[in-house]
Amino acid sequence: MLETSLRTLLGPTGWLSEPEDVEPFLVDWSGHCCVRPIGVARPASTADVAATVKLCARADVVIIPQGGRTGLVAGNFPHDRNSIILSLSRMNKVEPITPGDFCVSVGAGVVLGQLHAALNDTDLILPLHLGSEGSAQIGGLIATNAGGNMAFRYGMMQDMVLGLEVVLPDGEIWNGMRRLIKDNCGFQLRRLFCGSEGRLGIITGAVLKLQPAPRSHATALMALPDLQAAVVFGETLRRTFGEAVIGLEFINDTALAIALQQIGELKFPFDVPAPAYLLAEIASTIPGIDLVAEMENALAAGLQRGQLTNAVIAQNNTQRAALWKLRDELPEGQRREGPQCHHDVSVPVSQIAEFVNVCSADAEALVPGIRVCAFGHMGDGNIHYNFSTPAGGNFDDKEEELSAAVYARVDEFGGSVAAEHGLGRLKTGLADTYRSASERDLMRRLRVAFNPTDILNPGVIVD
Amino acid sequence: MLETSLRTLLGPTGWLSEPEDVEPFLVDWSGHCCVRPIGVARPASTADVAATVKLCARADVVIIPQGGRTGLVAGNFPHDRNSIILSLSRMNKVEPITPGDFCVSVGAGVVLGQLHAALNDTDLILPLHLGSEGSAQIGGLIATNAGGNMAFRYGMMQDMVLGLEVVLPDGEIWNGMRRLIKDNCGFQLRRLFCGSEGRLGIITGAVLKLQPAPRSHATALMALPDLQAAVVFGETLRRTFGEAVIGLEFINDTALAIALQQIGELKFPFDVPAPAYLLAEIASTIPGIDLVAEMENALAAGLQRGQLTNAVIAQNNTQRAALWKLRDELPEGQRREGPQCHHDVSVPVSQIAEFVNVCSADAEALVPGIRVCAFGHMGDGNIHYNFSTPAGGNFDDKEEELSAAVYARVDEFGGSVAAEHGLGRLKTGLADTYRSASERDLMRRLRVAFNPTDILNPGVIVD
Repeated sequence: MLETSLRTLLGPTGWLSEPEDVEPFLVDWSGHCCVRPIGVARPASTADVAATVKLCARADVVIIPQGGRTGLVAGNFPHDRNSIILSLSRMNKVEPITPGDFCVSVGAGVVLGQLHAALNDTDLILPLHLGSEGSAQIGGLIATNAGGNMAFRYGMMQDMVLGLEVVLPDGEIWNGMRRLIKDNCGFQLRRLFCGSEGRLGIITGAVLKLQPAPRSHATALMALPDLQAAVVFGETLRRTFGEAVIGLEFINDTALAIALQQIGELKFPFDVPAPAYLLAEIASTIPGIDLVAEMENALAAGLQRGQLTNAVIAQNNTQRAALWKLRDELPEGQRREGPQCHHDVSVPVSQIAEFVNVCSADAEALVPGIRVCAFGHMGDGNIHYNFSTPAGGNFDDKEEELSAAVYARVDEFGGSVAAEHGLGRLKTGLADTYRSASERDLMRRLRVAFNPTDILNPGVIVD
Repeated sequence: MLETSLRTLLGPTGWLSEPEDVEPFLVDWSGHCCVRPIGVARPASTADVAATVKLCARADVVIIPQGGRTGLVAGNFPHDRNSIILSLSRMNKVEPITPGDFCVSVGAGVVLGQLHAALNDTDLILPLHLGSEGSAQIGGLIATNAGGNMAFRYGMMQDMVLGLEVVLPDGEIWNGMRRLIKDNCGFQLRRLFCGSEGRLGIITGAVLKLQPAPRSHATALMALPDLQAAVVFGETLRRTFGEAVIGLEFINDTALAIALQQIGELKFPFDVPAPAYLLAEIASTIPGIDLVAEMENALAAGLQRGQLTNAVIAQNNTQRAALWKLRDELPEGQRREGPQCHHDVSVPVSQIAEFVNVCSADAEALVPGIRVCAFGHMGDGNIHYNFSTPAGGNFDDKEEELSAAVYARVDEFGGSVAAEHGLGRLKTGLADTYRSASERDLMRRLRVAFNPTDILNPGVIVD
């Protein structure tokens, strides 16, 4: 019945139910889903999304909204046969840009890389870059409140959303596609849907704030005596260059050593390895400034004071890309190395080194010889705190214990057990372990208020 | 009964019920409240706020949270005798700053100016400046999602809130005082309370994101042939200086002429008046740059192309203050001129001039000779669109018609009828005229979910 209605509504390209057609939608970056849904709806318009939702609501069938399937927490997997996947990928239109408004309207299915390309001819940017940008879609990036390398400078996805269009769980459409920075006409609904992981509504379109593109850059890799030195020098760079600091990544020795060993094309610019590294990028639109010279001054001062043991500045875009590649390939390097155990967490910036040191001691006590790959975003305290097995060994079946120890420390440090990847189906139980009764209750109330029949993405954020 | 309990709980300085003690709490920048509440609670701790809320909930007495009483929309006036005012002013502690975390924890009652002063010894700023900063309190600024001059660059209050502590309508405390940029551990509650105008909970504390203080500034006042030229040159400045543009205010001829006439100490830097003015400030933390020279280049180019008819750059801090005073005293100038009719609205940036022109024609048709004072924030499309009576005349009792015409145009231009001042009790009905049924319904659901007994600030945002 529902199938017939959906096929009639959406046409043969808009409704997929053959196993081989559905299969690709059951894989994302977190793995493979074993529950096969009724089918995959691929509406091409907001009206069709709304009609699809109404049909499902009437049939009491669950809807799993899906973007580019780059999530890492199984946030868009069906958990029940009695469900459909709703893919936004056909709603991929970038509207013409009015440059003076410093914003752009897009469909939820626009891929982030596609938007970057559409902005290429302008001198405006959407300052959001992450490893998945070739596949990740705007709707999913908003629904998961994506972060990335520049969040400490430009904010997270929620800070870039001016307007939204959302199909609600009853199939009504909320048109909040306003092109306004200032809009205090009631509760900030546009912000509430950011990070709601498909629980409160299906994002179908957005107006995104754009920024002027920087005209000049300077990118440097620094070697430091330890991670605390990276924390301190990171602060120094932010105080020196202020708003010009747009990237500030730290890497521990083990993470870079593994990546260098596994990925042949990486170029290590120093003679000897160091205990910690800092990758910094400054950028500005202001004409007539020499950022490379200013960065040289800052690094020279750091070397002289012994805060840095070595440093290199990219002299051209090729070198700049090579430095960033050292950072960007860390996950791939660790993947190639073998079994791993991941944690996407955040703590206050000043406590990054202390957190890593304490966690590493915990882990060593549990699994002697365990290798800690710690890297991430110094500007916002977001640590990708990952384990690789001891060289030639294994985790001794202690993955759960290892993770529990990390998350307990996160809580102790006032951090977040889900920094930028969200909760999905993998971390909702974990979040429940740490959030207060009042916080869980507020989230439950929100879910019930917006999605009373639990038709949208059940099992995520609040059960 | 309730009075006795509150006096026992809060002590003689924490509970005021004598008419002369209560009176000062019945006046704000929007006027005077005629409904006298049972009294004023002034708790000094979060626990006391929670206990006060529980006592009121048990007695079925309404609570009106109150900050610095600088609101312009009667958002914190009791609407019913059976209510108390809850003033947060005693919760005014600024916690010690950990500079490396680029944030600060404050009580809700901290006055914005007090926080600026506390940051004076650091090289960090909270980039929020507005006319009321000598009285406005952080809790109220968050609850009303304050904007100000730099919102297009640094965001509104909601963009500065990392953590929050909120007492909920049932007296439970939500402790969300996290010092984290990235925290995707569920719905973004910290953002939802921003702009909620006391309807969802009482904000008792906040962690605010700080920014590095700029080291150099350049401030310029420009004369232009018309308001559209100001829109165009504003865009040029933003494209030229990008992230360095931190202020971009426009003023129409009438607004400045009235202020100059009414306020003797204002210094007009040009020989002849112009149809429109633009006040721009650029700033940067980057060392070794000469922003004044760069601004001179940009202005010279604008003069040469005929985009500007005149321009002046502040050569020192005294001149800089004098230029800003021209902008800051516009409301006071208009107040002294006599009866006025105010509108705090926003439209997409590129349409500011067109909006002002169309509205002014509407108004002239209604009240010939009416004087339009239009000024505001070019970077975010926020227009303070105000009328003064025709010289020596009056509004002919057409204030409501005049405002209705303005708001209808706002709607037509895709704007907001409440840009940065919020809805309060004055504009909630207006908002209902323009918002869609689905938007009103979502807001109602939010209110019911969080504040089911309607004990908190009834009549605001959603009735």
